[in-house]
Amino acid sequence: MTSRSIIIDTDPGHDDAVAILAALASPELQVRGVTTVAGNVPLALTTLNARRVLALAGREDVPVFAGCDRPLLRPLVTAEEVHGHTGLDGADLPEPQAPLPDRHAVDWLIETLLAARDDPVTVCPLGPLTNIALTLIREPRTVAGIREIVLMGGAAFEGGNTTPAAEFNIYVDPHAADVVFRSGLPLTMLPLDCTHKALMPADWIESLRGLGNRVGNTVASLLTFYQRYDVAKYGSTGGPLHDPTVIAYLLDPELFAGKRCNVRIETTSPLTMGMTVTDWWGVTGEPANCMVMNQVDAGAFFAFLSDCLGRF
Amino acid sequence: MTSRSIIIDTDPGHDDAVAILAALASPELQVRGVTTVAGNVPLALTTLNARRVLALAGREDVPVFAGCDRPLLRPLVTAEEVHGHTGLDGADLPEPQAPLPDRHAVDWLIETLLAARDDPVTVCPLGPLTNIALTLIREPRTVAGIREIVLMGGAAFEGGNTTPAAEFNIYVDPHAADVVFRSGLPLTMLPLDCTHKALMPADWIESLRGLGNRVGNTVASLLTFYQRYDVAKYGSTGGPLHDPTVIAYLLDPELFAGKRCNVRIETTSPLTMGMTVTDWWGVTGEPANCMVMNQVDAGAFFAFLSDCLGRF
Amino acid sequence: MTSRSIIIDTDPGHDDAVAILAALASPELQVRGVTTVAGNVPLALTTLNARRVLALAGREDVPVFAGCDRPLLRPLVTAEEVHGHTGLDGADLPEPQAPLPDRHAVDWLIETLLAARDDPVTVCPLGPLTNIALTLIREPRTVAGIREIVLMGGAAFEGGNTTPAAEFNIYVDPHAADVVFRSGLPLTMLPLDCTHKALMPADWIESLRGLGNRVGNTVASLLTFYQRYDVAKYGSTGGPLHDPTVIAYLLDPELFAGKRCNVRIETTSPLTMGMTVTDWWGVTGEPANCMVMNQVDAGAFFAFLSDCLGRF
Amino acid sequence: MTSRSIIIDTDPGHDDAVAILAALASPELQVRGVTTVAGNVPLALTTLNARRVLALAGREDVPVFAGCDRPLLRPLVTAEEVHGHTGLDGADLPEPQAPLPDRHAVDWLIETLLAARDDPVTVCPLGPLTNIALTLIREPRTVAGIREIVLMGGAAFEGGNTTPAAEFNIYVDPHAADVVFRSGLPLTMLPLDCTHKALMPADWIESLRGLGNRVGNTVASLLTFYQRYDVAKYGSTGGPLHDPTVIAYLLDPELFAGKRCNVRIETTSPLTMGMTVTDWWGVTGEPANCMVMNQVDAGAFFAFLSDCLGRF
Repeated sequence: MTSRSIIIDTDPGHDDAVAILAALASPELQVRGVTTVAGNVPLALTTLNARRVLALAGREDVPVFAGCDRPLLRPLVTAEEVHGHTGLDGADLPEPQAPLPDRHAVDWLIETLLAARDDPVTVCPLGPLTNIALTLIREPRTVAGIREIVLMGGAAFEGGNTTPAAEFNIYVDPHAADVVFRSGLPLTMLPLDCTHKALMPADWIESLRGLGNRVGNTVASLLTFYQRYDVAKYGSTGGPLHDPTVIAYLLDPELFAGKRCNVRIETTSPLTMGMTVTDWWGVTGEPANCMVMNQVDAGAFFAFLSDCLGRF
Repeated sequence: MTSRSIIIDTDPGHDDAVAILAALASPELQVRGVTTVAGNVPLALTTLNARRVLALAGREDVPVFAGCDRPLLRPLVTAEEVHGHTGLDGADLPEPQAPLPDRHAVDWLIETLLAARDDPVTVCPLGPLTNIALTLIREPRTVAGIREIVLMGGAAFEGGNTTPAAEFNIYVDPHAADVVFRSGLPLTMLPLDCTHKALMPADWIESLRGLGNRVGNTVASLLTFYQRYDVAKYGSTGGPLHDPTVIAYLLDPELFAGKRCNVRIETTSPLTMGMTVTDWWGVTGEPANCMVMNQVDAGAFFAFLSDCLGRF
Repeated sequence: MTSRSIIIDTDPGHDDAVAILAALASPELQVRGVTTVAGNVPLALTTLNARRVLALAGREDVPVFAGCDRPLLRPLVTAEEVHGHTGLDGADLPEPQAPLPDRHAVDWLIETLLAARDDPVTVCPLGPLTNIALTLIREPRTVAGIREIVLMGGAAFEGGNTTPAAEFNIYVDPHAADVVFRSGLPLTMLPLDCTHKALMPADWIESLRGLGNRVGNTVASLLTFYQRYDVAKYGSTGGPLHDPTVIAYLLDPELFAGKRCNVRIETTSPLTMGMTVTDWWGVTGEPANCMVMNQVDAGAFFAFLSDCLGRF
Repeated sequence: MTSRSIIIDTDPGHDDAVAILAALASPELQVRGVTTVAGNVPLALTTLNARRVLALAGREDVPVFAGCDRPLLRPLVTAEEVHGHTGLDGADLPEPQAPLPDRHAVDWLIETLLAARDDPVTVCPLGPLTNIALTLIREPRTVAGIREIVLMGGAAFEGGNTTPAAEFNIYVDPHAADVVFRSGLPLTMLPLDCTHKALMPADWIESLRGLGNRVGNTVASLLTFYQRYDVAKYGSTGGPLHDPTVIAYLLDPELFAGKRCNVRIETTSPLTMGMTVTDWWGVTGEPANCMVMNQVDAGAFFAFLSDCLGRF
């Protein structure tokens, strides 16, 4: 593939951290910046965590911008039960040295995307879609600066991981998701259907310690903490690793398979709030607005991640 | 198993017809009566079809009672695209000889269930739950006459077959389903998760012609017509055969596996209307109200049906 | 006016009691029966109260039929804070002597209305519309036996008396109201807009004691208890007397003024549940389905009631 | 009263124009800026109209900032049937001479309000609340720079003017209204209950021509066009003049009377979407979040406006 510019919008979060590292390790991707949002933990922590991950990678040249500290309309829901109270429990990451710019993520996104209309950027949301939706609402012309949106979130047939119907990222800010899914932008979704088919193999986490670098050791410690939650919940031998699927897809879309569908977001019923209602069989007659991935080559996916992490 | 009394509430419909035949062929089941409801086709047709199936079986001693001609609150939705305009396209069934009693199904259900409090009846809904809900609303004491409800309907992880979120039987009358699922009665649900794992094998339909009786030939013709819809829709080699799973479950529950869950019915959002929101992973803390089957021994299921149909 | 047959569907309740008495005192009205429903207090009490009111009137020849003990879909909400724990606190009414028929109100309504197709009956609901809706659902052909429905309930511009948006009778069973308002039957609604403009004059209640009969004295005691709630809530000098407006309207429609409008019932949003959304200004383009009264000649209304009560 | 700084957020619109003029004519008010939003007509027109009104007033020193061109989540609804295709049909206003700053209203609001934390500003929304909500979402700390919000919008008992349940400003962007009403900011609402009690007297519009200035003549022409719609709709002799009530309230709150209530915005049901559900009688137990005006001294209101317009 040719090189492409990306922006990572994220709420680290263990799997977010691995996704950021994978992107930084991929020469084909130019990470223009990392924008943070409240999600797995509150904004102050997701922002600090994003900066720590960049420090770990030795890439504090990539700017971080703090964005929205709450969803558009609903109160914030977080996931400390998964990620611990810091959002990155399980390992000590270095303190960031680069200062945090006094610039709201949405302002930076608007400026950057308006300036990118001749060379549009791929936007990679790994958390609730608050920043992206607010950017589109505040400055609709930013769509011209977005090549496509490739996001981790939602579920087609898998059911939710937060409520019976909803996946966490969409559940936290369903109205933001609704804005994004109705934006008309090219959209690819890596949902639980995909990530729950790529459970971390038993020895894979440990194998990262053998990479012989600090990043590998740190990620191994992080993921050991992280997967305990899903292993306990689902009774599986390994947990899913959601967000890095976005980066793997950018680098090697052939690892994934899916279908273009109409996807709408439930924003009214408390019972199904945040569901990504996916018309997989085309019964509604509504036009497709999203590429929904539901298959992944798990072995190749983890090999790709090992390869990325080994480059540090 | 010991013998048990059942009432079949149904909207034939091809798969309903096979379910009725399977029940009649099973000496362990005493079919107390068949109540009809609008669903796959309008009430006049589902009632006529139920009587024709009994005539085919030579069992017009089993009484048929016509019930509700529309859902509790919503306009009727039918499925002629699946079942044809008669609701049983594909074969000629005999005309019924027994007259239709001038008795509403709900009145008969109330009387029968009130009288059955010492020896409760198993209720087997194969269509929209209008009659059953109306019985429970009109006479709440009928719960004491119901041993359990074993129904075909809904979907846990499979997605809907009518909308992206909803299965036909529940979609047609979600408010009735809500009444049934909140009734506190013992409830077993054979959803699409189960029936879509038991697709008719390629030669099975034809094998029915070899049973050497009229029932087998007629069912083969009916199912040839019936499965063309799902085969075209899903691109599979065989279609599902939903309703007979209820009868197979009554006779041999070991053919199925599932989990007791909390199931709630979506009744407000147009987008997800009629969804059976299933808390498979127990994340809501709500108590289980339904045994949800999601596994079936497909080979044994079709062997069971062949065996039943061969008895005529 | 010429004589007409009416059925009173009611949940007494103080104002229900006065409405029943007013109807019984009016020779132009033939009260075919009184059907009871859970509402102001549970069904056992509304049924007993209806019978006591008939006993007070010396009219136990009018049959009472107990109906639904809960709304179609929602849990029952009652109003003991208004009516006291008996539903008729404030006076001692005689015990009924006539036995309660072992017949569900809905069954009696179906039989009576089907038989009345040549001489349709006016149905007068004074409480939640559960019985009426269930009758229409269970036997749609009953519409032919209904001349019109004249009901107390709802609010156009007045706001609710139970929630900010909803009046009690509609709030308790909004789904039943939805069935009635979509039935296509001729419908007249006496809402809070009307009844809140007919507050009981300061000396009117006392004047009933001067009628010189037991009924007058009993009603005076009942209403003294009853109006304390609304007087305290609204800071007015007298409370409204809702249900008898239905009877006054039947006898002398000129006492009221209003407009034919489209009225729809809110059944999905918790915030506005049970609201009678009234298109007074015709902005929706939906056809009128209800005569909505919003003006009343209060003086004439109370004079009419005095006159009625004086006849006992 | 002492002087106060205000920001007018507006979608002119005839009544918006009069409100802006009244504010500019009042020495007690320092109009810091005018922000525009899509509402009565699309954003390009409301922005041009705001500038034209300032030009008419000879006050192009007041900056105008164009804001959101659509509601947060819903498609834009406009009201050309009321305001004509320009949004200010009925008179020729001067072309603006001052250029429009290349600055989004929300950015200017954020900067201005953050800087005003020591001397907070009164925000006066006269249209859909999109800009104000977006400001609060994008930068929650702006609340510290807002002294209070005094807005025209909603209806308590009056019913809507756009749907049976909803007033135009709230209906157009109910989600934005929800953000504002849940913001915890001091809030005063001038709803239809108030403005429909201040209908323009028959000779008042003409009297403006006697003021002897261009503003008076222009406003008379504008209002002649404007009131034809409501006069035809409601059958009244004069139409309401909504938005200037906000300015009159700021200058002389004694002209109005009302009650502090809990007000919530309906954002889910299509039937009641955008309703300002007002707990006037305190039945919900929810804390008051808004001063809801429902009385106005109409004579004094129009005298105030004449006085203002006479100052140009």
